[in-house]
Amino acid sequence: MDDVGKGPWLDDDEQTAWRSYLLMNKTLTTHLERHLQREFGLSSSDFEILVNLSEAEHGRMRAFELGRATQWEKSRMSHHLSRMEKRGLIRKESCDSRYPEIVITEEGLAAIKACAPVHAARVRQFFVDVLGPDRMIALGEASDEIVATIDKHCETDCPPEVRGPC
Amino acid sequence: MDDVGKGPWLDDDEQTAWRSYLLMNKTLTTHLERHLQREFGLSSSDFEILVNLSEAEHGRMRAFELGRATQWEKSRMSHHLSRMEKRGLIRKESCDSRYPEIVITEEGLAAIKACAPVHAARVRQFFVDVLGPDRMIALGEASDEIVATIDKHCETDCPPEVRGPC
Repeated sequence: MDDVGKGPWLDDDEQTAWRSYLLMNKTLTTHLERHLQREFGLSSSDFEILVNLSEAEHGRMRAFELGRATQWEKSRMSHHLSRMEKRGLIRKESCDSRYPEIVITEEGLAAIKACAPVHAARVRQFFVDVLGPDRMIALGEASDEIVATIDKHCETDCPPEVRGPC
Repeated sequence: MDDVGKGPWLDDDEQTAWRSYLLMNKTLTTHLERHLQREFGLSSSDFEILVNLSEAEHGRMRAFELGRATQWEKSRMSHHLSRMEKRGLIRKESCDSRYPEIVITEEGLAAIKACAPVHAARVRQFFVDVLGPDRMIALGEASDEIVATIDKHCETDCPPEVRGPC
């Protein structure tokens, strides 16, 4: 079926690099997620919320701030926070009677404290140590450039009805 | 809540590079996925299956081959293929009466042909062109090293009950 991709497709070097990147990302993400789930019973979504809250002042954020930080859709955030609340990892507090704040619980804090160093050790093993300092810093800078390019594109070229990355 | 992360955590440079990489990956993935969905009505999962099938000999693969290529869990694959079959993008054919082959339909082929060049143009704009050839090739090579490191780890250190990335 080799007639797919004729035309403005990527050349061989571009295709190879892009597919290597995609495979790396999938392999690394899958590995880190399965490890968190197996060893700590946390999904990557749980982890992302707990990291954000644990780093916020007084361990609390508004849901819309969490939405901005995670780039999740509103309905995904709402459902996921409800599930985390049932599991005792967060609670909702209404201090101005309109929009509740999302607060990390003692249990949530214990969960993130337990898994964060182990998770970091895996990031070190499979990302930091494989790349070495020079390539790691270069990748960080290249990543920032890609994000800046997409942000600029979204500011100027996105359909007006689209919110967030278009 | 700055007492999270004491101990074997990442240092500032490592943390900065890792978070830049995570943000880049999320921003790029979200952008590409929303574009595919909005312009072509395809999810990234649909796209991944259609790309694999369209590149396979005669546009057909066994489900387990698709599972290996995508690293999806079996139940996710089964559910997703059923949904794609209902939408007419693939069909199942039993040629040895035991395991059906998954075959891309004319409609599926038309869908991937329509979106592939537009998708590739976005990959060029936000990945290939931002990195430039040298950094792009370096990132591809670094990605291969990370995958090889994780594969080696999984061969030697994974709990025996774990299949795939552990």
